[in-house]
Parts: sequence; structure tokens; C-alpha cells
Amino acid sequence: MAQQYVDMDTLKFLLYRVHDLQTVLDQARYADYDQASVDLFLNATKDFSDKELFPFFREMDAAPAHFKEGEIIVHPQVEKYMKKAGEMGLIAALFDYEVGGLQMPNTVVSAAAYIQETANNHLPGYVGLTNGAAELIIHFGSKALNETYVPKMLTGDWGGTMCLTEPQAGSSLSDIITVAEQAEDGYTISGQKIFISGGDYREAENIVHLVLARIKGAPAGTKGISLFVVPKKRRTENGDLISNDVNTVGDFQKMGQKGYCTTHLSFGDEKDCKGWLVGEANQGLKYMFMMMNGARIAVGRGAAAITMAAYQASLAYAKERPQGRSLTRTGKKDVSQEQTLIINHPDVKRMLLFQKVVSEGALSLVLLTAKYHDLSTTHADPKEREKYLLLLEMLTPIVKTYPSEMGSVSVSNGLQVLGGYGFCTDFILQQYFRDIRIFPIYEGTTGIQSLDLLGRKVTMENGKGVLLLSEEIGKTIREALGIDTLAPYAKQLSGKLELSQEVLQFLIPFVKKGDYQRFLSDATVFMEFFGNIVVGWLWLNISIQAEKALVSGETQYTGDFYTSKIHAMKFYFKYELPKTTALAEILTNKEVLTVAEENSWFA
Amino acid sequence: MAQQYVDMDTLKFLLYRVHDLQTVLDQARYADYDQASVDLFLNATKDFSDKELFPFFREMDAAPAHFKEGEIIVHPQVEKYMKKAGEMGLIAALFDYEVGGLQMPNTVVSAAAYIQETANNHLPGYVGLTNGAAELIIHFGSKALNETYVPKMLTGDWGGTMCLTEPQAGSSLSDIITVAEQAEDGYTISGQKIFISGGDYREAENIVHLVLARIKGAPAGTKGISLFVVPKKRRTENGDLISNDVNTVGDFQKMGQKGYCTTHLSFGDEKDCKGWLVGEANQGLKYMFMMMNGARIAVGRGAAAITMAAYQASLAYAKERPQGRSLTRTGKKDVSQEQTLIINHPDVKRMLLFQKVVSEGALSLVLLTAKYHDLSTTHADPKEREKYLLLLEMLTPIVKTYPSEMGSVSVSNGLQVLGGYGFCTDFILQQYFRDIRIFPIYEGTTGIQSLDLLGRKVTMENGKGVLLLSEEIGKTIREALGIDTLAPYAKQLSGKLELSQEVLQFLIPFVKKGDYQRFLSDATVFMEFFGNIVVGWLWLNISIQAEKALVSGETQYTGDFYTSKIHAMKFYFKYELPKTTALAEILTNKEVLTVAEENSWFA
Repeated sequence: MAQQYVDMDTLKFLLYRVHDLQTVLDQARYADYDQASVDLFLNATKDFSDKELFPFFREMDAAPAHFKEGEIIVHPQVEKYMKKAGEMGLIAALFDYEVGGLQMPNTVVSAAAYIQETANNHLPGYVGLTNGAAELIIHFGSKALNETYVPKMLTGDWGGTMCLTEPQAGSSLSDIITVAEQAEDGYTISGQKIFISGGDYREAENIVHLVLARIKGAPAGTKGISLFVVPKKRRTENGDLISNDVNTVGDFQKMGQKGYCTTHLSFGDEKDCKGWLVGEANQGLKYMFMMMNGARIAVGRGAAAITMAAYQASLAYAKERPQGRSLTRTGKKDVSQEQTLIINHPDVKRMLLFQKVVSEGALSLVLLTAKYHDLSTTHADPKEREKYLLLLEMLTPIVKTYPSEMGSVSVSNGLQVLGGYGFCTDFILQQYFRDIRIFPIYEGTTGIQSLDLLGRKVTMENGKGVLLLSEEIGKTIREALGIDTLAPYAKQLSGKLELSQEVLQFLIPFVKKGDYQRFLSDATVFMEFFGNIVVGWLWLNISIQAEKALVSGETQYTGDFYTSKIHAMKFYFKYELPKTTALAEILTNKEVLTVAEENSWFA
Repeated sequence: MAQQYVDMDTLKFLLYRVHDLQTVLDQARYADYDQASVDLFLNATKDFSDKELFPFFREMDAAPAHFKEGEIIVHPQVEKYMKKAGEMGLIAALFDYEVGGLQMPNTVVSAAAYIQETANNHLPGYVGLTNGAAELIIHFGSKALNETYVPKMLTGDWGGTMCLTEPQAGSSLSDIITVAEQAEDGYTISGQKIFISGGDYREAENIVHLVLARIKGAPAGTKGISLFVVPKKRRTENGDLISNDVNTVGDFQKMGQKGYCTTHLSFGDEKDCKGWLVGEANQGLKYMFMMMNGARIAVGRGAAAITMAAYQASLAYAKERPQGRSLTRTGKKDVSQEQTLIINHPDVKRMLLFQKVVSEGALSLVLLTAKYHDLSTTHADPKEREKYLLLLEMLTPIVKTYPSEMGSVSVSNGLQVLGGYGFCTDFILQQYFRDIRIFPIYEGTTGIQSLDLLGRKVTMENGKGVLLLSEEIGKTIREALGIDTLAPYAKQLSGKLELSQEVLQFLIPFVKKGDYQRFLSDATVFMEFFGNIVVGWLWLNISIQAEKALVSGETQYTGDFYTSKIHAMKFYFKYELPKTTALAEILTNKEVLTVAEENSWFA
């Protein structure tokens, strides 16, 4: 058996019971699926991960993807994984039957991707980006584009990428300058793109880049950005693949995720790079951002997965490693006693329980967001679809951020559990620690997600998103209030929900005064505050289901399993939720210390 | 000029003005020093660091120290650095004139070590451990041991180490099993030691190991541990150096500090390893721990140094990198504006100010602790010495922990400032991020330091240490209350001091009931709580001196310099100090969730 890297019981408990997958499976689009078939699919994915992902995880770190003579050299498993994922239908799982997809719920595909990411977070990105690029073509591309590119992408023969970032623009997409010039048979593309994940690898038959560029004469800023398909190789009229003047000019060597290549691409060095417009001109950013919810959920999911894998590794170590002794009632240790396992030291238990609440809380958040995504697109009732879309919009910046930020802290705790060994390359924790550190940066940094949460999502439709989310949280609180053992925690969460209202009542007036700088200056603090409460809600919800299972004597899982969930909820409410008291104090402090074009503060 | 890695102005302001080095220089032992000579020494150290440390920092990471055919291969600069440090008197700086030392204050030597550690944290450990090993021999060793070993160590020709950890014992020193057997001419040593920093390198003429071992028949536990000098090579009667059967059997490859070798040593494989007892039998741990305050301050100092260097690197980047635009009063960006520098984004300012308060606060803590160390050994009045010793004891676990833990968070923020570039090996932040992660583990993990703080230091002499420290904090509060602009912050800190009393009044009764497990179960949370308040005190103190300088129109530094210190204090009091509200809430929560030999919580 492979080393334990994922807790399948918890995943299934959250998926089927806590988030009630059945409500998703009930939608017409998913008529062919039931829990049994989903279970088979997830078990097959776990088996696939044991064989094709986990065994290559450490060697991909030891021998990083790298640039050599105009090419990117990746681990040979990349090609094998892409093809096998294609064969298993993983690349196409979300898509309609008619384009060769499996028409599976996002929630289920997310669970499967999560399993793979716990096993090896360097590989799934190749599939994820190919899937994302194909999705853009399917949704917005012409029939011809679909026919030319999608089938080869879904088999894993061709890779796909998203090309947004440019050297001079960074996170600021309004400053993109890659140029598309109208030509007889489409557009000619020229420009530079950096930080392109999965941007090239020698074994790929072709790579299909989805590129943001500016058509000559387009308006400045984000309103002038269009989306193009720009393949590495293009087909000639007789069907041959020839070079499309897309050049890999270098790569970025990184501290972690070393097996997942990050490239610098140059388009049109020889003025022979052709691009095909996707959808309408100047709508590129809109299209890209319609896919961005998915990409952001995926980043949060990857971080949640690493957090879980690190927790499993720390837990296994703590259960095996003897060291020191428990304290006696004199406050001393009795050296004639045998050594105890380190899991018996309260501080180690505290660190492990912290890892547990973050990793399982993050997973619960990922699954819930994916469920909202499904219901927002497939629910029969348009009003319900609208509701779920707003809930999805609310949670998207949080699901990107909480697992990334708190997961990084959690993995660091996990490293600490191993003491000196945690820092050594012979142990896996240090790799998780390095790998996860990119997640608060990917797809919009934590700062940008926080601006999105407070600046767009909280204020959208006059606060309707916050209202809907508060209603969902309120339902859980009311249910928990009816269960004696959970009522105190329900009250605690209810107080936090009120606290969030107080914080918003302090902040919203800045918008009304037009003082957006001040309104948003502590957006990142607000993100930590609000994310913490949301995950508290999810834990209360988990404990309700666990308590019900205990009371009804369910035997799907052991009694210990259910009890551990309730214990973890209590841990969250004792050690995590109180942090919001301090965060609210910060958020409602009237002193303004970060807003000004003022460098003397760093004199 | 080398890249900026240290802020010499802040270092000197803290050293001379805030911590008033003169009170140390006034002690008889330091009669030969004044501020001018200290200044020369620090400037020379900075110059030395520019030339001999910083230029090798990144290459030592790129080409790690490693084990090869029974030897450890290190960067050639290690040998050069050791010899030059010896020539400059850095290894011997603390020691008495009569043994070849410079008889400098610990505070000054710490400042010099700090400068070096900001430049390159991989090299100073070689000197630090050689110094520590020599100190043990000087304090507790026989005349013969002194004559044989110390002179060669102080010139940097011979290295030194501390050999504590063994594979089966980890942090639990009572489980040490390395054996010393009485022989005709001393002892024969046999055993294994792991995680030995600077444990061996090919160029060293000799390495002098200070080894904890158990004399055959000694009592169990820590009472049966003795200290031995065990050189890699021993002298024959005619003065030749021959092998002493100390074998390097491997090394530990690490995530960071790769240039600082970490070795696995085996003593007496051929039963020909001789050791010489230091001081009396069974007193080894006591001797080792008399040096441990110094070692723990040194670890905190190293972490503070990395935190500072990372802050300087982030700040330089933020001042140069244009990206995005400031928000206008409509909440939108105006793309016709030029891009702004990222330092002008409030969230970036928040991250940089966080780095500033942690790095300078940690430095202030290091200098204060070193000052207490000096006064506890050199003050003319024995009562004062006793007072400073208790203050030193109180601060030691905090100075080890605050810079390590908060420094790690600060460096992570520093990496975030650079966005994607922060994760790339072309930029230095990711190296600081990896390097600093060992500091919460070195010389007693954060968990162990926290047990020391709450379990030993808070309770020692019926709480006299806490009382003395509270009195020192009280003095600062009273002074700040007298300055209008600072009075609100003084009141805030005063409230926190009261809060710490409430927390202790909740916790201490557990000791009285003999429930040590419960008393100490949240020791790490208490450490975070108490450390945060201590650094708040230091910031208030800094702001008093800055305010006085502004009022009196001092021109030693610019007005902006002083203003920036006051601004940083306000930042600390807005964003950091409130965290203690939540931590106190956790500490006084009655629920017990981590104490029990109970693994079902992880079912």
C-alpha cells in the first residue's frame, strides 16, 4: 500500500453526507450518475493516484522541470499521466456528452482532482490547464476551433495553457501589450508572456495557448483585451503540423512545485505566429474571468490537498515516533517510564488538531463551492441558479485564499511536528512546505482576492451575496441550536455572524464617502476575519452530521470517526474562531496607517 | 556597494540610544571601550560582511555542503571565514584578555554577529559553535584542556561543535546513551550523535567536539550526563595529530541553510575514541545549560537577522517595481495614469510595515536580552546582577521564539510582496524563507521554549521574574503616559499587562492542583501571547526615544527616521497587539481538548 496521503473516509463523508451530493445528482444533467457510480469513479481515481501520481512526487522535486536548448524538459511521467488521464476521461469529465465528455458534476470532478493533488501536486496542473483551455474553446470558440483543437486536448495528446501575465504588467491585466494584428487568415500575434504553467514540454505533440492580447487600435485598459487560440504548431491545409513561431525562451526555477514547469514564451519572433480569435473582439477578459471561478476553486483545492497530505504525513510520524515522557503530578518526568509517542504530548496534539481542522475545513469549503457551482448552472429553477451563483461568487475568493493561507500555516505546523527531521529532505514535509507557498500567489494573490471579496463581492447587488450567505449560516446555527451538545457552539457562531455585521457597518460608510482606498486598505485582514467565520460555519455543519450519525447509531463509519469530527469542531471553536475577535478589533480601529503615497514611513 | 541587507542606522539607534549601551560600557570589565571604539568595530564588521559574507550567500545555497567518502565538503569560504574571523578576534571577542580575548560586551558582540547573520546566515554558525565550545572549556575545563584546545580554536584553525542529540532521544536529553568508559588516560567514548551543526569539514585542521555522554554506571536521566572534550584528532606525546576515531558517517540534506553542514557522527567505531572529562562527572547538562542562554539568544538573533535582510530585500523591490494603479474616488482605476510603484498599494504597505515591526522589534529584543546578560555578569552590585539574571531568564525563551516564529511569518510576507517572483530562485526571498524555517526548531523547539517560559520561568522564585519584568514594562508605560502623543498607546499596553495577570491567575491554580499537563497544555499559545506584549513594550520604548529626539531637534538621524519609528509603533499597536485579546480568550477557555493519551481524535 502506498503511504497514506489522503483520508478517503473524510472526503466521502463530506461529499455524500455533509454536502449531500444527492441534491446535485438530482439535477437532470447528471441523470446517469448515482452515489454508487460516483464511488466507483473516486475509488478508481485513488487507485490511479497510488500508481501514477504518488510514486513520482518526490522525484519530480529532486529533478526539476527545466529549460534546455529552446525546450522544456519535464519528468517522463508528465506525458504518461496526460495520456492516461485522457484515456480515463479525466480531462473531459466535466464536458457534455456531445463533445466527448462524461457530463459529471463539478463537485465529483473536484473530489477526483483533489485526490490526485494530495498524491502529487506537480502533475494535475498539466491536465487542469488543458481542461481549462479546452473549456474556453468549447464555450466561446467557433465550430472550426472546436473541431481543430478540442478532441486532441481531451485525449491528452495536446496540452493547453492560459497566457495572461506579461513582464511589465504582473497582476495588472489592464497593462497587457501583446499585439494581435488582423491578417488575411486571422491574426498575427506578437508579445511576451511569463509565468506560463505547463507552457511547453518536449513530449507534447502540440500545446494550445489561450492568449490575452490587444487587437491593434483596441481601447486602453481591460476593455481592449481579446482572447486568442495560439497553438505552438498549426496545421497546414493538408493537415501537417508546422511551427507557429511560438518560442520557449526560458523558464522560472522555483522553490517548490518543481515538476510543474513555469515558462517564458515569446510569440512571433519571426512574425509568423498566427492566432485565432475566440468569440468577439475585446471580450477576452470577460471570457477568461468566466472561467476564473473554476481556476480559483482549483487553486484552493490544490492547497487544500497539500494541507491534507501534509497532515497525513505528520500524523503518521507522530503515531510512530517515541520521544520524551508525559509529565507526572509533580511536574517532573519519570525517566524510569518508557518513552511515550510524541502524539501524546499536548503541544503535538494541538498542532495535529490544527492541521486536522484546517485540512478538513478547507476540503469542506472546496466541495461546497463546487456544489454551488453545479447548482448555479444546472438547477431547474432559475431563481435557485441565481442564488447559487451569488453564493458561488461570495465563496470564490475565500476558497482560493483560506486553503492557501491557512494551509501554508498548517503545513508549517506539520513540519514542526517532526522537529529537525521536518527540515530534512529525507522527509516529505519540507516539500509540502515549499510546494504550498505558491498557492497564496497563483491566480490572483491573497491581496487581490481580498479586494475582490470586500470590494466586489460584499458590495454586489447591494449586499445580496452577504445576505444569502448569512442565511445559509443562519440555517446551520438554528439546526445546531436544537442539539443540546452543539448549542453553545451555535451561539458562539451566531455572535461571530453579528460581529461580521458590525465590521461591515464600520467599513461600508467609506464606500459611500468615495474613500475606496480606506475602505479596502485592510481588505486582507477582512479576508482572514470572514474566511475564519465561514470555516467555523462549515465545522458546525460537520459536527451536526456527525452528531446525528452518532445518535442514530449509524455504522457507515466508526463511532470514533464521528466523535473525532465533533472534537475537531470544538478545537476550531476554541483555538481558531476567537482570532476573529482580534481581527474585528483591527478592522474597526480608526487609525489609518497604510494609505498614502508616503515612503518616509520606511526611512 | 553590496545590496542592502541590514539597516545600520536602526541597529545603532537601538543599541546606543534605546538600550543605552553606555550603562553596559560603564561596567569595570569594559573600561577599555567607549561608543567610538564600538562604532569602529561595528563598521569594520559591516565592511567584513560586505566582502566576506554576503557575496557567498547565494552560492552556498546553490552548492550545498554535502557528505562524500567519509568527509563533509563545504564551500571554500568556510575555511577563509573561520581564519579571518579568528584574525579579527571575532571568535574570542567575548573572552577575558588573559585567554586571548577582547573582553567585549555581549551586547556589542551580538550586534556584530547580527550584522554578519544579515549578510549570510550560513557562515556565522561555524564561528558561533567554535566560540561556544571554547567557552565551555574555558569555564569548566582543566588547565591542560584549556592549553591544548582553546588557542587553536580562537584562531579559527580548529572548529568546535556541541554534540547533544542522539537518534533515539531527539529533544529528550534524559535518554542519551552515548557511553564514556574510564580508561587509564581518560575515557573511551562510544555512541552516535546526529544533527551536529558544523560537525566536520575537510579543510578543518581539527574539530573539537563537546559531547554529552553517560559514564558507565551513572544514574539514569539527566543526572547521569557528563560533558567531554572529544577531538576529531588527538595529540600524541610528541605533539603529532592522529585520528581519534571520530567518524563522519553521513549528513542531513536540508531545505535551507544548505551551506551550514549538519552531520551524523559516530564515536569509537574502532574502540579508539578518547574523551576528556570537562569539570565534574554527572554535571554535564548543567554546564551545557549554563551556555544555553547564550545559544538561545544566538538562535533568536539569527532569525532576527534573516527577518531584517528579507525586509530590506522586499522594501527595495517594492520601491522599484511599478504595477497597477491607485484607486480613484469612483473605486475604479484610471488606466490613462502611469503605473504606480507597488509600495503605494495599501496592502503592500501593510506587509512591509509588518516586516518592519517584526524585524526591528526582534532586533530590539535581542539587544535587550544581550544587555541583561552583560549586566547579570558584570554589574558591580550583586543585587542588580541577580535582578538582571532573572530578567535574562525570563526573556531567553522569548528571544529564542519571537524572532523565529514571527520572523518566519514576516519573511513569508516579504516573499508575498514580490508576487510570483518571490517564489523564483532568481530572487533572494525564497532563500530567506527556506533558511529561517529551521529557527523555530534549533536549540529547543518553540514547544520546548514555551514549556520553559510558562513551566519554569513564570513560576521561578514565586513569580519574581514576571514581577521584575512587569516593573520594567511599567516604567516604560509611566514614561509614555507623560508624553501626550504616546499616552493612548501607553494605556493600551497597560491594559495588556493587566490581561497577562488575568491569564496567569487562570493558569496558576492548575499548578497548585498538581495538574501540570493542563497547566502547560497551551504553553505555546501563552508564548505567543506574552511575546507579543513584550515586543509591544519594546516598540513603546522605541517610540519614546524617537519622540524625545524629535522634540529636542536631534540631527543624529533624519526627522523621517524618528517619525518612521513612531509610525511603526502605531502599526504594531493597531495590527499586532490586538492579537493578544484573542490569545487570552483561548488561554482562559475552560475546555480541555489536547490533554489525554487519546488517538481516537484522529480517527
